[in-house]
Amino acid sequence: MDFSSFLTSLGTSCIIFLVLMFLFTWLSRKPGNRFVYYPNRILKGMDPYEGGSITRNPFAWIREALSSTEPDVISMSGVDAAVYFVFLTTALGMLVLAGLVLLPLLLPVSATDNSSKLSNTTSNGTFNDLDKLSMGHVEAKSSRLWAFVIATYWVSFVAYCLLWKAYKHVSDLRATALMSPEVRAEQFAVLVRDIPHPPEGQTRKEQVDSYFRTLYPEAFYRSMVVTNNKEVNKIWKELEGYRKKLARAEAIYAKSKAAGKPEGTRPTNKIGFLGLFGKKVDSIEYYNEKINELIPKLEAEQKLTLREKQQASAIVFFTSRSTAAAASQSLHARMVDTWTVMDAPESRQLIWTNLHKKFYEREVRQYVVYVIVFLTIVFYMIPIGLISALTTLANLKKLLPFLKSVVDQDAIKTVLEAYLPQLALIIFLAMLPKFLLFLSKAEGIPSKSHTIRAASGKYFYFSVLNVFLGVSIGGTLFGTFKDIQKNPNVTYILNLLATTLPDNATFFLTYVALKFFVGYGLELSRIVPLVMYHLKRKYLCKTEAELKEAWAPGDIGYETKFPGDMLVLTIILCYSVIAPIIIPFGVLYFGLGWLVCRNQVLKVYVPSYESYGRMWPHMHTRIVAALLIYQATLCGYFGVKKFIFVPILFPLPILTLLFAVVCRKKFYRFFQTTALEVACRELKETPNMEQIFRSYIPPSLSSEKSDDDQFEDALSIVSRTGSFA
Amino acid sequence: MDFSSFLTSLGTSCIIFLVLMFLFTWLSRKPGNRFVYYPNRILKGMDPYEGGSITRNPFAWIREALSSTEPDVISMSGVDAAVYFVFLTTALGMLVLAGLVLLPLLLPVSATDNSSKLSNTTSNGTFNDLDKLSMGHVEAKSSRLWAFVIATYWVSFVAYCLLWKAYKHVSDLRATALMSPEVRAEQFAVLVRDIPHPPEGQTRKEQVDSYFRTLYPEAFYRSMVVTNNKEVNKIWKELEGYRKKLARAEAIYAKSKAAGKPEGTRPTNKIGFLGLFGKKVDSIEYYNEKINELIPKLEAEQKLTLREKQQASAIVFFTSRSTAAAASQSLHARMVDTWTVMDAPESRQLIWTNLHKKFYEREVRQYVVYVIVFLTIVFYMIPIGLISALTTLANLKKLLPFLKSVVDQDAIKTVLEAYLPQLALIIFLAMLPKFLLFLSKAEGIPSKSHTIRAASGKYFYFSVLNVFLGVSIGGTLFGTFKDIQKNPNVTYILNLLATTLPDNATFFLTYVALKFFVGYGLELSRIVPLVMYHLKRKYLCKTEAELKEAWAPGDIGYETKFPGDMLVLTIILCYSVIAPIIIPFGVLYFGLGWLVCRNQVLKVYVPSYESYGRMWPHMHTRIVAALLIYQATLCGYFGVKKFIFVPILFPLPILTLLFAVVCRKKFYRFFQTTALEVACRELKETPNMEQIFRSYIPPSLSSEKSDDDQFEDALSIVSRTGSFA
Repeated sequence: MDFSSFLTSLGTSCIIFLVLMFLFTWLSRKPGNRFVYYPNRILKGMDPYEGGSITRNPFAWIREALSSTEPDVISMSGVDAAVYFVFLTTALGMLVLAGLVLLPLLLPVSATDNSSKLSNTTSNGTFNDLDKLSMGHVEAKSSRLWAFVIATYWVSFVAYCLLWKAYKHVSDLRATALMSPEVRAEQFAVLVRDIPHPPEGQTRKEQVDSYFRTLYPEAFYRSMVVTNNKEVNKIWKELEGYRKKLARAEAIYAKSKAAGKPEGTRPTNKIGFLGLFGKKVDSIEYYNEKINELIPKLEAEQKLTLREKQQASAIVFFTSRSTAAAASQSLHARMVDTWTVMDAPESRQLIWTNLHKKFYEREVRQYVVYVIVFLTIVFYMIPIGLISALTTLANLKKLLPFLKSVVDQDAIKTVLEAYLPQLALIIFLAMLPKFLLFLSKAEGIPSKSHTIRAASGKYFYFSVLNVFLGVSIGGTLFGTFKDIQKNPNVTYILNLLATTLPDNATFFLTYVALKFFVGYGLELSRIVPLVMYHLKRKYLCKTEAELKEAWAPGDIGYETKFPGDMLVLTIILCYSVIAPIIIPFGVLYFGLGWLVCRNQVLKVYVPSYESYGRMWPHMHTRIVAALLIYQATLCGYFGVKKFIFVPILFPLPILTLLFAVVCRKKFYRFFQTTALEVACRELKETPNMEQIFRSYIPPSLSSEKSDDDQFEDALSIVSRTGSFA
Repeated sequence: MDFSSFLTSLGTSCIIFLVLMFLFTWLSRKPGNRFVYYPNRILKGMDPYEGGSITRNPFAWIREALSSTEPDVISMSGVDAAVYFVFLTTALGMLVLAGLVLLPLLLPVSATDNSSKLSNTTSNGTFNDLDKLSMGHVEAKSSRLWAFVIATYWVSFVAYCLLWKAYKHVSDLRATALMSPEVRAEQFAVLVRDIPHPPEGQTRKEQVDSYFRTLYPEAFYRSMVVTNNKEVNKIWKELEGYRKKLARAEAIYAKSKAAGKPEGTRPTNKIGFLGLFGKKVDSIEYYNEKINELIPKLEAEQKLTLREKQQASAIVFFTSRSTAAAASQSLHARMVDTWTVMDAPESRQLIWTNLHKKFYEREVRQYVVYVIVFLTIVFYMIPIGLISALTTLANLKKLLPFLKSVVDQDAIKTVLEAYLPQLALIIFLAMLPKFLLFLSKAEGIPSKSHTIRAASGKYFYFSVLNVFLGVSIGGTLFGTFKDIQKNPNVTYILNLLATTLPDNATFFLTYVALKFFVGYGLELSRIVPLVMYHLKRKYLCKTEAELKEAWAPGDIGYETKFPGDMLVLTIILCYSVIAPIIIPFGVLYFGLGWLVCRNQVLKVYVPSYESYGRMWPHMHTRIVAALLIYQATLCGYFGVKKFIFVPILFPLPILTLLFAVVCRKKFYRFFQTTALEVACRELKETPNMEQIFRSYIPPSLSSEKSDDDQFEDALSIVSRTGSFA
């Protein structure tokens, strides 16, 4: 790729972003779109346009984002969102501080190296104007390389300092949230798994109750035995489906009445396959009938489930936060594989079907999943390598000769050259996250936030290994495969990595630019959700509930967002010293990312769980991993430059590992469990234990008459009926 | 070594043992020796000869040992001794079960292999009669090797079964001991380390009290801040020294009075260097004066220590066992390196000087010690190799030609050949344990039992790597050092190990025989303590206290005893399939060991601590390590035998690792902490918290007037004086 096609790519991306931003300014002012651009505010019962959002100024959202504070973020989207901003700020800070030193230091050093100007003329075409500013331009063995050594150390130390500060800050955020005087149900509960078989003549419920009542005679409140809800969920879903359809039919009927026809047209439907065949019936009557049929069935199934389908797992409630915190950390039974206790996840993020999985089953599943992920990472290498080899323009022309006439036109050629390889890569990667999330769930993890962390970790290693190393080495690999077979050692592979890196600098520059301009533009303008919303509103949604479903946005999607950011950070770190010109792009990526994300978090996304910043240790580890890759790359690259003082860089990876160990020792345990000094803070009010208990009852099991005062909660019935059984 | 010298060695050892055993029978019957042979019983206030110990039957002690039960052992020497017997029983069981199958299966298979009879004649002299019974006698590639494969699997599975049963059993022993309704002080206390700087205007004591009172408003009893006792200990020791001397002088005076002189001879001593120079003074007056001088000094120093020398560590007492157990497992502060809590060791095994060591200091010390141990293990290789190369008779003759005439006599030659190399080895090893114990203490471990475990682990790896592998490969190594340099890979080293092993079988047979016959003989007859006791009684001890010190035996000494046993077990396991004739020796070693040790534990040794079987996980890990070495050796040896089905053995090491992981997961945590279901058992009586608290006051700090009723404990004064400061 030459310099002009690079500039074209950059220019187009930038224009796309500006267009999308103006589109956003224009669209978000229209009141009809407020459900698309301000759902979080609306759901929180706030005025969407509060704070002067209606303005013609296209940069107003930036001002709003900048003036918002961390507590704003926490109150709107929880600690997890705030932690994500800590990550963005840390990455941004690292790059800004690196850029402030590296750009004025290294660019002149490499640009003024005359010695290699002579060999410049013999360059074989891949050499472009940007390369003059990179370390590749400095002659081997030159004493100018000392400047790059200093730069390497600078970037590392900046990273250590900022990461340390960030970890401390996140730890404070977590502590503050956990100390909050608000009553949060999950702080009063623990999740108990691997309960042994109940002794003869005792129900599961009695067994759990007596066990915990002996251990915590004062603080034990009540327990909820986990049941196999497969059947009852099925019936409940069917029932809910009919309820929705009934509401929809009634809405249509009401509308047609309002439209002037005195009796209205009663809606009808066919009861056969997909509603396309079979007898035609009156919808309202038909659905009412179905609902009345299902309600007793559901109630019978509920009773059956609660009585017969109890599993070896339970949620135990305590009347005090600190007892629950202490209980979640203590060994209860002598054998570690029975009565396993951990702190309960929020009820909304419990993965009910994983709760009953046994200790060894979980262990085995985990290892099986690791093997599958490993195989996935290794064998995806081949398709990605092939794609990146195929999707160069020259190859396309060879393979599809009829494209030649189109492609040879200069304008099209430049655009295609700029985008083709990157597009293939991005589309390719979109297929993966769902699969990784599915795998993480299959490990037997009991909470949604944990599966997302697990999936995000897998995706990070996948992206770094396949996209970054894969693309870097990919092209070279096919040619030099035999060489590697001859010399299968680390030094050789490091050298290979180091020699291929600078050639790929412009590829990654374009990749990053494309990603942030177009990606963030689409994110900000929410074109796709907007179109979807309006289509649904017009043609599909008839009731309020349906409409709400059409605009209610989900989570921010850390499982893909964070690994994406990490891939960019890894790329930019690795090139920061070799080609410092990449740093401003990184600053732009994380700066823009921060702004756009702040806007979305405050106004759009509605978090579906709160893990109190448990994501951070994972983020920290990944950044440290990126730092290690960066340091290893530079060790290799200095070796290629025949710099005899390379060993001066060797303490860096060791320092990084030490840093990781110290951070883990000092901070990590507080992210696994709740410290007692945090849990023992006073509450605003005496917790309503009944309400806390009830919040954990899955909707399919909670009784129909739950609004009544005489509500007798479903699970406590069991303990009584069970004891007579 | 030829067959006759082997038999000589065996015969002599056996005779020595029998002689020592008769000596024991004869000596232990004399009432004057009862303090040497029954100290544990006497200290427990029991009749030493209870159960018919006075008999002429030299095998009476065996009958007694066999008829004693596990509860007897626990009541006489605690759970740790019982766990050691579980180890001995497990090792014995493994070898007996192995022998029952391997001897009838493998001996005929190898003895009847005619094919190698032909090549026998060309054997170069190292081939002896015993080798006919070993795997070395079976021809390469022979299908007879299948029998050895079956044997390898059999031994492994026997080991898994017995180890699993043993772990379960020890876990039960530990639980029973911890559940005991007796009040044990350490179950009510936790050790707190890494306390941060106290806030302005608060003493350390107030800080600790307020911190734990907030967290445990109901169960917190009191705290004891750790102080720097160096000075006060010094004065206290001096004082105690003078007290002993005074008592001694008084005893001498009383004796001389009793001897007829009406006023007696008042003992005198010189006050100069070592009591040899300087002015002569009346001892009783002089010591009384000194004591009266020191008492106010000690009291002043006690006050100063308690007020000024408080350190960042404390022992916190709770009124309930289960709160203490939960507290020891919970994270208290957000930062893991502050307020570190662990369960308190017994007061008698607290290493007071290690308590104040900070988190990171401990970590650093640990790694430094590991490096030192690693260097020790690696560099002792050289002297041991040299010694085992030098101390062959042929070498000695070459080096010291004047020995030739002595050594060439047949009888002397045989004896020397049998003992020389082993004796050097045993003496050499005697230097190490103290050093390793010192290193383990330097790690900053807070309890004596833990340092002993740590030292024992280090010693095990030292012995296995140096003695076993060192001696095996040692001789060969010097010759083939260049070959190894050329082929520095695992396969080659395994092959080397496998080829040298059978040659060394007789060496190790003699080593084991020497160790058990002579070692256990000495252990049982207690010749050395007996002589020491009588010498001291006759010439040194004048007072009752001094006499008691002369006979009071210490611990059983697990830090050397267990690694020694493990070395033997490793050797026998490794040879079990290759030369099954070694198994009976192993059975004899562990059988005799069990008997002798049972006798000593019931009658002699007085345990100085109780760790409730925490030694077991370490024992278990070492046995599993020995099993791994055994499996690796056999994989190598089958390779040497050119057995093409070697891969059939490869699942074994994997199975062993899996076994180790499962055991660790299932059982280990209960050995680190106390499970709540164990700690919550009811107590026999309401614990006397004052007494529990006072049991932790070090003797040098406890007030002189501690017998008084108005005793106001020293450390609580501090909190009051401190708060006014």
